[in-house]
Amino acid sequence: MVDEETIVLVKEYAVGLHHYELGLVKGRLEAGETVLEGAERELKEEIGFGAHDLVEITALSLAPGYMTHVTHVVLARDLYPEKLEGDEPEALEMVHWPLADLHSLVQRPDCTEGRSIAALYITRDYLQQEQ
Amino acid sequence: MVDEETIVLVKEYAVGLHHYELGLVKGRLEAGETVLEGAERELKEEIGFGAHDLVEITALSLAPGYMTHVTHVVLARDLYPEKLEGDEPEALEMVHWPLADLHSLVQRPDCTEGRSIAALYITRDYLQQEQ
Repeated sequence: MVDEETIVLVKEYAVGLHHYELGLVKGRLEAGETVLEGAERELKEEIGFGAHDLVEITALSLAPGYMTHVTHVVLARDLYPEKLEGDEPEALEMVHWPLADLHSLVQRPDCTEGRSIAALYITRDYLQQEQ
Repeated sequence: MVDEETIVLVKEYAVGLHHYELGLVKGRLEAGETVLEGAERELKEEIGFGAHDLVEITALSLAPGYMTHVTHVVLARDLYPEKLEGDEPEALEMVHWPLADLHSLVQRPDCTEGRSIAALYITRDYLQQEQ
């Protein structure tokens, strides 16, 4: 979150779909890393920010019928600029989006990933409960 | 939907996660089937209902970075009993859930699949717009 109402999305080329997909910063944990350490590293690599406030709010599965893959959803707030070199082939374009307007976001043809969409709605619920 | 406020979920054993997962009726399209035909067939196989009113409300991707898999989200209303034999190894347990209470649902440890959760929130938005 760049402020209490605005999320950061990134445009990343989706090889599987042959278009740029708008979604959340994400990546794989490295050996020995905690979930929060991995989340902050990915933030620094993909958008050039660290976060003073990181909290894991849920974990999602991908295709539980046949895959063991689990995605941890981390809410990052109180950002500060810090860039790390990552493995992205090109710099990612950042897009700011109001969390209140997920309805328009999910109608875009370039925002289709189930995990990202689920994470955004769950985060919105989480923040409403927090208030 | 069994009525305007209540969704049907199924409990299905998730081999990838070694537990029963609560999610939406789902399956693969067969050759020559339209999205709506496939959706209704899966409903008949998994919960023993057809639907007079079927509409595709969105399509979701699974892992667009490396997979081409697309999931069509179909809203089924005006259900009627009709059972088809499917390929499920055992009968699926049905659970009725109020669409207004997705917040509790996603906090359950057995409801983790990104696509199902995204589909439910998008459907809730869709129905709110429809009113």
